[in-house]
Amino acid sequence: MQENALIKWLQGFSQAGQLSSWTGIGDDAAVIDRPGSDLVVTTDLIADGTHFISSEATPAQIGRKAMAVNLSDVAAMAARPLAAFVSLLLPCETSEDYAKALMSAMRELGQQFDCPIMGGDTNVWSGKLAINVLVIAQTTARGPLLRSTAMPGDILLVTGALGGSIAGRHFDFQPRVQESLLLAERYDLNAGMDLSDGLAMDVRRLCQQSGCGAEVELDRLPVSEVLGKNTASPEEATRRALGDGEDFELLLAVRPVEADRMLAEQPLGIPLTKVGHCVAEDGVWQIQGGRRTPLPMAGFEHGGPS
Amino acid sequence: MQENALIKWLQGFSQAGQLSSWTGIGDDAAVIDRPGSDLVVTTDLIADGTHFISSEATPAQIGRKAMAVNLSDVAAMAARPLAAFVSLLLPCETSEDYAKALMSAMRELGQQFDCPIMGGDTNVWSGKLAINVLVIAQTTARGPLLRSTAMPGDILLVTGALGGSIAGRHFDFQPRVQESLLLAERYDLNAGMDLSDGLAMDVRRLCQQSGCGAEVELDRLPVSEVLGKNTASPEEATRRALGDGEDFELLLAVRPVEADRMLAEQPLGIPLTKVGHCVAEDGVWQIQGGRRTPLPMAGFEHGGPS
Repeated sequence: MQENALIKWLQGFSQAGQLSSWTGIGDDAAVIDRPGSDLVVTTDLIADGTHFISSEATPAQIGRKAMAVNLSDVAAMAARPLAAFVSLLLPCETSEDYAKALMSAMRELGQQFDCPIMGGDTNVWSGKLAINVLVIAQTTARGPLLRSTAMPGDILLVTGALGGSIAGRHFDFQPRVQESLLLAERYDLNAGMDLSDGLAMDVRRLCQQSGCGAEVELDRLPVSEVLGKNTASPEEATRRALGDGEDFELLLAVRPVEADRMLAEQPLGIPLTKVGHCVAEDGVWQIQGGRRTPLPMAGFEHGGPS
Repeated sequence: MQENALIKWLQGFSQAGQLSSWTGIGDDAAVIDRPGSDLVVTTDLIADGTHFISSEATPAQIGRKAMAVNLSDVAAMAARPLAAFVSLLLPCETSEDYAKALMSAMRELGQQFDCPIMGGDTNVWSGKLAINVLVIAQTTARGPLLRSTAMPGDILLVTGALGGSIAGRHFDFQPRVQESLLLAERYDLNAGMDLSDGLAMDVRRLCQQSGCGAEVELDRLPVSEVLGKNTASPEEATRRALGDGEDFELLLAVRPVEADRMLAEQPLGIPLTKVGHCVAEDGVWQIQGGRRTPLPMAGFEHGGPS
């Protein structure tokens, strides 16, 4: 079966958001709905052969990534990590050293973000390696940063640079937790998410959740250095910045006046770049050389080997 | 590798509790440690070939069980379920109907306990079926019911009947959430847990966490009807009531005066039975026919097929 078919059905549980990870509110994390609550919860499972190839990555890389994708979802909600829970499926032939390296890498990254591993479930089985991480986080006084609250006219900003994840960035990316908290504290952010499947697909999700459209200005995209160096043509670099996926940078929608302030102040150690703006009309468009055409859906979807 | 070896190492993260599922506090669930917090978190992963055989169970049975074991852990803490999160690893050949039956069973049981599924992660892969469920719950004003607070002299009580899980009860057991909340509200419970691996093993865990020992009176064990009917000898029935595992009944430690009151009032729709008491001396003992001998470790441990 296709993941998408099930995810679509899961919308019946409420509304689904992402292609693989899904939450009731169709956002990067679920918001616990009870009086006085300020909790958001995110969970991501990564599996051998789907999200990584165990023979081509170290246990430290795999463990780090399992934790990092969840912390990135927490960043997407502008929340502060509180605790992580780790469930492991370990192949019988796993050595103790391997398992420890896996867990140590998770713990280390968690510690960097004040996110202790507080529990989990460990199973040895005859199947392949899979790791489920769930992070509970608390929102700031400003509440969670949602995908569904972008407005026509909002400027679209991204942190850092896009594309080139396959060259290794997908293992060593830095979850933008501090950046997100800093921005949410100093500026008035209308909406936001993390870029897990490529700007082309993710800007579409932001728009769908917000009930608007967007124009993406291709010449403005902050192309990652590794792409600039290794890619034959600027067109190819742009295509990959839009579609490689696993950037784990932030995509933000901000009122023009606030965006101007953010762009002028550049408050992060990494660039903040304008990449387009939201429009009232449905659909996502690319602007290049003065031409406006539909932006191809070049996002990246994890598919199980079938 | 052996799960136990890794779990032992995971104690370095803080202290581990169970053999497979583990939490920082060595209890059935983790307690979120922040000011004003009343949250406990439990997570359990069940996998094909280890906790169930997919060819021998319906998707509804498997889904129900995945949710039920977590709700039982919530009951073990005398907490009220708040939200569940479900991560799935589905084999490529899984039909949409199968996946829906799985999720529907989880949702249905969750709904019975006011525990909506609020998010998760769905992955199709080339491996076998595995399901991770995590439940967030809130404790009552009395705080969480812990394993570590039993006292010498406490009476040991169990709910319901023990043994015979393999005859089908491990798929249709009822998590004792309401029972636990009712008891925690009306009575002063010193300590408690749910019986997942058999009384013989689990009473040992309660004692280890509490720093005491226990005497179990074998003639008092409430043997499940299915065992009484199908088992050749009373000795065999007792052995299985101690060791079959997956009873998912509550084991409680209560002061004698309070235990007398509970036993007289029998406030649940199911029996409350005295099975022994805690002692100051380390170790777990069985009493039968006036003889006191060490209770064999007859608990059941899920082992991955190796």
